[in-house]
Amino acid sequence: MSTPETPADGASGKTPRTERGRRTLRKLLDAAAIEFGEKGFHEASVTGITGRAGTALGTFYTYFDSKDELFRALVNDLSDRVRTTVGQALGPPLAPFDTEEVALTAFLRFAREHKEVYRIIDEAEFVDPGSYRNHYESTAARILDRLKRGEDSGAFRGGLEEAHAWAIMGMNVFLGLRYSIWSEDDSAEEVAAIARTFLERGIGKGVA
Amino acid sequence: MSTPETPADGASGKTPRTERGRRTLRKLLDAAAIEFGEKGFHEASVTGITGRAGTALGTFYTYFDSKDELFRALVNDLSDRVRTTVGQALGPPLAPFDTEEVALTAFLRFAREHKEVYRIIDEAEFVDPGSYRNHYESTAARILDRLKRGEDSGAFRGGLEEAHAWAIMGMNVFLGLRYSIWSEDDSAEEVAAIARTFLERGIGKGVA
Repeated sequence: MSTPETPADGASGKTPRTERGRRTLRKLLDAAAIEFGEKGFHEASVTGITGRAGTALGTFYTYFDSKDELFRALVNDLSDRVRTTVGQALGPPLAPFDTEEVALTAFLRFAREHKEVYRIIDEAEFVDPGSYRNHYESTAARILDRLKRGEDSGAFRGGLEEAHAWAIMGMNVFLGLRYSIWSEDDSAEEVAAIARTFLERGIGKGVA
Repeated sequence: MSTPETPADGASGKTPRTERGRRTLRKLLDAAAIEFGEKGFHEASVTGITGRAGTALGTFYTYFDSKDELFRALVNDLSDRVRTTVGQALGPPLAPFDTEEVALTAFLRFAREHKEVYRIIDEAEFVDPGSYRNHYESTAARILDRLKRGEDSGAFRGGLEEAHAWAIMGMNVFLGLRYSIWSEDDSAEEVAAIARTFLERGIGKGVA
């Protein structure tokens, strides 16, 4: 995973050193998100992206060697933006179940505002499988870290493992697909509250 | 959704009336699963599929008008096969948590034996979005039916709704991605047992 300071793995040799360069890179990534999101990888074109970004074609090639490299950088950038958006929403440490609820609310809101994120990351399965796998493996690793902290704090039960992190990630991704991408007929807060209760006590009747 | 008796929506006007015709259609669908799974939709070819199936090109066109129509039929067929595989594993009615555990075990095993199912259904998001959405909406509807039955039986708590079905579906899909497609380092039974406990009591400490 790249860090927020080096936003584009694919452009790692060409990370801009000036504020102006960083702004141009940001414009190219934002334009690429719209172009790839609307047209898909195969139909998207470098000239379509530079046209949307308002940059010259030559400028594009000072940042990226190819459409493929830009796509890889964009997947890493979106993965980072999901991570930093959730991180900013969390702020100072919260109680473990609050953390999961706030993280999911932030993710659902981000997906509503950036509906293209699903299509682009999903298309990475075909265009750039390494980035696709990296996105989910690193997301699951972050969730597992939170589970371990919740265990240590005594809020979560012991014995939580990688499979729990993948289960929670799957839950979050599919709630996003249903309630952020395909419809917004329930608020992000309502959906995250349901997920929180699911995490707290599953779907069993529990102890009466 | 098509029913098991009409396996291919896309070929609904050409459903074979003879046993021999049904066998040929099955061979074409199985060959298509391999071809699309290995090459992806765009690189896959009708001649590649008929070659694998051992059928003549003319035979193909008595069943399907195009590669697109075959792809749509294949997504519906795989969706049906997941459903019938899980249905057969369930057999006579089980207790609600047993039902979820057996259903997930059967799904994880099916995905291990047919790893191409993920790639094909995921590619439908781009090639045939209606089939993609239909697959997940009908799967979630089946899970919601099971949740309602579990509520009625007293095993599941009241108030379960569509979001719970999507959460469980997401959990199952991502456990399959991690433990059937990307690796098989835990048995299907072990993974399904973890998911069952997650459903039974979430990740909270619960009542001491």
